[in-house]
Amino acid sequence: MACPRPENVGILAVEMYFPTSYVSQEELEVHDGVSKGKYTIGLGQDKLGFCTDCEDVISMSLTVVKSLMEKYGVSPNSIGRLEVGSETVIDKSKSIKTNLMELFEESGNGDVEGVDSTNACYGGTAALFNCINWVESTGWDGRFGLVVAADVAVYAEGPARPTGGAGAVAMLIGPNAPFVMERSYTSSQMSHAYDFYKPVLASEYPVVDGKLSTTCYLKALDLCYRRFCDKYSKKEGQPFSLADIDYVVCHSPYNKLVQKSFARLVYNDYLQSPNLVGEEVAAKLEPFAHLSHDDSLVNRDLEKLAQQVAKPQYDEKVGPTTLLPKVVGNMYCAALYGGLVTLIHNKAESLVGKRLVFFSYGSGLASSMFSFRVRAVESPFSLSAIAEALDITSKLESRIEVTPEKFGKAMHLGETRYGANDYIPTSSIKELRAGTFYLTKVDDKYRRFYSRKPSVESSPAMNGVKIGRIRSEDIRHRLSVFLCARFDVGENGMPAEYPKGGWECGSEGGSYSVPESNGSRWTKEEAELRCRKGDRNGPVIVSGRKQLLSVRVSATGNGDITDSKPPAAHHSHESMCMDKYRLGRTTARWSERVITGIKSRGEMPSTTSAGGMIDRLQMIFVVTRTEEEGTRTKTEPRLSQKPPKPTLAYPVVVVAPHAMWPIAATILTFSQPNVAKHGPSHISELSLL
Amino acid sequence: MACPRPENVGILAVEMYFPTSYVSQEELEVHDGVSKGKYTIGLGQDKLGFCTDCEDVISMSLTVVKSLMEKYGVSPNSIGRLEVGSETVIDKSKSIKTNLMELFEESGNGDVEGVDSTNACYGGTAALFNCINWVESTGWDGRFGLVVAADVAVYAEGPARPTGGAGAVAMLIGPNAPFVMERSYTSSQMSHAYDFYKPVLASEYPVVDGKLSTTCYLKALDLCYRRFCDKYSKKEGQPFSLADIDYVVCHSPYNKLVQKSFARLVYNDYLQSPNLVGEEVAAKLEPFAHLSHDDSLVNRDLEKLAQQVAKPQYDEKVGPTTLLPKVVGNMYCAALYGGLVTLIHNKAESLVGKRLVFFSYGSGLASSMFSFRVRAVESPFSLSAIAEALDITSKLESRIEVTPEKFGKAMHLGETRYGANDYIPTSSIKELRAGTFYLTKVDDKYRRFYSRKPSVESSPAMNGVKIGRIRSEDIRHRLSVFLCARFDVGENGMPAEYPKGGWECGSEGGSYSVPESNGSRWTKEEAELRCRKGDRNGPVIVSGRKQLLSVRVSATGNGDITDSKPPAAHHSHESMCMDKYRLGRTTARWSERVITGIKSRGEMPSTTSAGGMIDRLQMIFVVTRTEEEGTRTKTEPRLSQKPPKPTLAYPVVVVAPHAMWPIAATILTFSQPNVAKHGPSHISELSLL
Repeated sequence: MACPRPENVGILAVEMYFPTSYVSQEELEVHDGVSKGKYTIGLGQDKLGFCTDCEDVISMSLTVVKSLMEKYGVSPNSIGRLEVGSETVIDKSKSIKTNLMELFEESGNGDVEGVDSTNACYGGTAALFNCINWVESTGWDGRFGLVVAADVAVYAEGPARPTGGAGAVAMLIGPNAPFVMERSYTSSQMSHAYDFYKPVLASEYPVVDGKLSTTCYLKALDLCYRRFCDKYSKKEGQPFSLADIDYVVCHSPYNKLVQKSFARLVYNDYLQSPNLVGEEVAAKLEPFAHLSHDDSLVNRDLEKLAQQVAKPQYDEKVGPTTLLPKVVGNMYCAALYGGLVTLIHNKAESLVGKRLVFFSYGSGLASSMFSFRVRAVESPFSLSAIAEALDITSKLESRIEVTPEKFGKAMHLGETRYGANDYIPTSSIKELRAGTFYLTKVDDKYRRFYSRKPSVESSPAMNGVKIGRIRSEDIRHRLSVFLCARFDVGENGMPAEYPKGGWECGSEGGSYSVPESNGSRWTKEEAELRCRKGDRNGPVIVSGRKQLLSVRVSATGNGDITDSKPPAAHHSHESMCMDKYRLGRTTARWSERVITGIKSRGEMPSTTSAGGMIDRLQMIFVVTRTEEEGTRTKTEPRLSQKPPKPTLAYPVVVVAPHAMWPIAATILTFSQPNVAKHGPSHISELSLL
Repeated sequence: MACPRPENVGILAVEMYFPTSYVSQEELEVHDGVSKGKYTIGLGQDKLGFCTDCEDVISMSLTVVKSLMEKYGVSPNSIGRLEVGSETVIDKSKSIKTNLMELFEESGNGDVEGVDSTNACYGGTAALFNCINWVESTGWDGRFGLVVAADVAVYAEGPARPTGGAGAVAMLIGPNAPFVMERSYTSSQMSHAYDFYKPVLASEYPVVDGKLSTTCYLKALDLCYRRFCDKYSKKEGQPFSLADIDYVVCHSPYNKLVQKSFARLVYNDYLQSPNLVGEEVAAKLEPFAHLSHDDSLVNRDLEKLAQQVAKPQYDEKVGPTTLLPKVVGNMYCAALYGGLVTLIHNKAESLVGKRLVFFSYGSGLASSMFSFRVRAVESPFSLSAIAEALDITSKLESRIEVTPEKFGKAMHLGETRYGANDYIPTSSIKELRAGTFYLTKVDDKYRRFYSRKPSVESSPAMNGVKIGRIRSEDIRHRLSVFLCARFDVGENGMPAEYPKGGWECGSEGGSYSVPESNGSRWTKEEAELRCRKGDRNGPVIVSGRKQLLSVRVSATGNGDITDSKPPAAHHSHESMCMDKYRLGRTTARWSERVITGIKSRGEMPSTTSAGGMIDRLQMIFVVTRTEEEGTRTKTEPRLSQKPPKPTLAYPVVVVAPHAMWPIAATILTFSQPNVAKHGPSHISELSLL
């Protein structure tokens, strides 16, 4: 028997990336020698974001997936499906999804369904539907889905070039979501058209019939809207019109088309019933009441008038969705969801209770209209938390304007790079934001290699120790660093020795070294300081969230030692680290409980509370040191330093990117006294909210 | 509230296409100057099917979709989702799915979700999962899903070339299926690998690391199998092993790898518990019990021995799945489902109650293991009906062997065609089977045009009238022809007049003309003959199947006239035709009942039977003629001939491709006497099986 379907399935969280480099459309107009306003008013576009040769659709996808998982404390093991919608083809066979699996490698979780969905700008929507269907199917195993919509939109020199852009959006999918898809109203229009396509395989540029594409888009919009209204009224027993919609998000190849689209919806409402648009508007539209559908699509007078009468509603229902598509440009599959991100950025919590209607269009053609109801849910998936995590303002502020000449050069370089092998990107990664993935090399076999710009930034001193922001992928490394440092600490509190050239630490996947002078990571000195000062007895926090911390923890300290078992197949890397260092039984149990908590997200009851300020705490690792020599692990083949005998137990704190400082401070505040006075062996009960 | 999930969701029907041209692997060995047995034993392949330049992945997909819909009487309006899995990229943006929407154009049904799924040979499986999830989701609207897995596998000259192939499989998806997916055991292994990929965009050929790909495949198989066993035993509370599987279908790039794969499963069972493989086998495998996983994957002794001990079970559980992949070759996405087709072809009804386990692998890499339980369902989705409709024997018999030289030339021509524009294919369509789609032209804008080889063939005279096989897309035209002819028939039984140059008939989508001398359609003379002779009183049959005919029909003849209503939005085209010609009320009711029967497929009770031989009949249209002038429709804007006053009622028969002649004859046999003696107005009850 199939278990019942989960409820309120939809989008739990969103993350977005767009390149830091952009060119101004106004500057482009001057550079291209076109009439003023051609791009800014004619297309309705302000800026155009673009990738240099060290970024591509894969790097952008890696960035949003990693970033989303970090910000929301989602472990790779808790993802059961990951899929990508894109029309940016770097490889005709290997999916982008498989590149993203690199992020799962360490966790051992390869049981992640989903591949890439393709049809022009529609792929992301196909992936979204697929992922939501998966959660509602008997195939769902309770884990999260993750959808990526990502594209690089570039055009040959000429009138279409200003309609380029680039970006990626990742969406976390599951039940009890703030954005609940009203799946049964979804309506589609799919047909065969050659309006925009990419048959010239060696070129990144599409073949475009701009006029046909606009007509195809608007015709598909009409059909989808009519079908949507039909499905709604059939199911709900009442007619559907724009009055039932709070916000409309349309696929935005350029903003002008979104303006035209909304005007079409008003015209459609009028055709459905003049009452729906009000007397005044109805009177104005009356002369166009009897046009054939095809004629209505190309009638310039109607187009103009409809936009004019639709303007007040457009400002209210569409305006708050247009910022990113206007200042980043067409992001193909990501464009529509850039509209969603803009709306969250602008409206945040006030979206609760609203209905959002989306129109997704991909040339060729595939299109759908679908809707979300917005619910109030608790942090981290509350609207305000999502808006905060998206951090659009600082993303936009960190962008760098380049000249049209430099943009042209980047496009030209891209032409030589597309489909090429055996090269190293020449563009600087200096402009990339912290935490951004980038292409480091394409080898002679066309294999692509990526790295990530460190996300560690200097941060306020806390408890006498400067703590950096840490990438969650560093958690294991950092933990290893700590352990390593611990081994090396002499009686005077100074490191006794460490590998030449940096810190080298063993872990499941191999050994990791922390270079001596990498500004983006802790230096040796910083780590030493950490050992000498507060950190020795200070807790280390891993980013997280309220509901996962509903565990009551007893740390009984040294002497509480068990033999470590080999890590289970899907053990999280954290617990593997634990095993490796033979932690105390209580600690291991605690760790396991926390990990179980993560796995069964949201199912643990909230129990005790020691303060109201901590809402992003996920895990505390208590690393036990003991004086018993015999408790050292003997199966540590890859550890370059033999671990010295542990002597003390102390909590280790790792702070992940979105564990805000006040939170960390709070923890220190209430846990520090015990730890400082008695050492961790005396913490008999550590209750956390 | 979401309605409950439908049950027994899975594959309802399957259709398969593979090219008619093939080369013998034995001949290839000689031609390539390699050692005898290198391809036939080393790869385990017998023949290699390939496309000429008038076929491609789109034409093959068109063929299977059209053919499946025809054979099973599935109207375009009854499809709510259509998706394609393929790695054959003709266009990097426009999905193959959108090309297939041409088949839906006439029906007006554009509300068909789904696009293309991509990851090497895994795309078809992704599409299958997506489609099944859709049926189980709240987005399902009760219509069928349709999954296409299609690919052209070609390799550069060299050792990989003999592992090519080409084929397409279409699968109809819905509840109450004979092949029910046990969705909750599905296990996957996805990771990042460069074993086989297509980064050289302008070339159709992949970059392959053959050795790595084999290791990746087998490693993924192990991981999937272990996870599958884990999920099963966790859910069912008992261990899972090969003993619980009746048939294993593995993705077959070449048969030898399938042999190795099955041997791995035996080895995995042994590792799980020696008891599972029996004492004798366990003793033989014991020396390999403690190999590391990686070592076990490359140990030649183990590989050899495991295949040897697995042989008896292989013959029983895998052997019946290997024919098509061996004689057509690697069909990438279609290969796995070619295994399913082979199994149905070999085992048909005896599959009932069995469990089939599938292993799907796509380089890059994405892989899944999943299972089906086979249920007994009624025709047309019974195992025997599916096996008969697949008609593999005659498909194989109609193939034509070509020399390795000719094969090489075809590959060379393909190289020049791939990604090219502005050409007309030069290969003959003579060898194509009836009903096969083919490429007619690629224009200067890279737009591709397709046509279909007529499925009309001359056939035995029946009741004095030569009846051709008709494509179901012709049904509407043909019906129109009949109606038109009816109008024109004078008292002498001869057509009074008809439009110059052919027959022109009105219908919903516009007017259709039947050219005078089109060998593939009825000529004017043939149609006249039809009017004069048996057809006037003879029934016209539309292809179909038993359970749809479980209607008791009363045709009371002339005088029984109603006003026609405007056709509903998604009315089937048949009923629209009916409406247009204001048929008698009984007829309309009948038509409606039959159409309802189609829509709620399988839900009509089987009632009466007038003979045992008809099992593919779907619909009979009784077109009522009456002498009342006033009953003519007045709202027939596109009809080029004013309909004359109807004078008689007679049944109209349309025979579609898979309505076999004996069946048609049978109908004539029992219905003719009444019709001939009394005219259709005297058929008071026409009972059909």
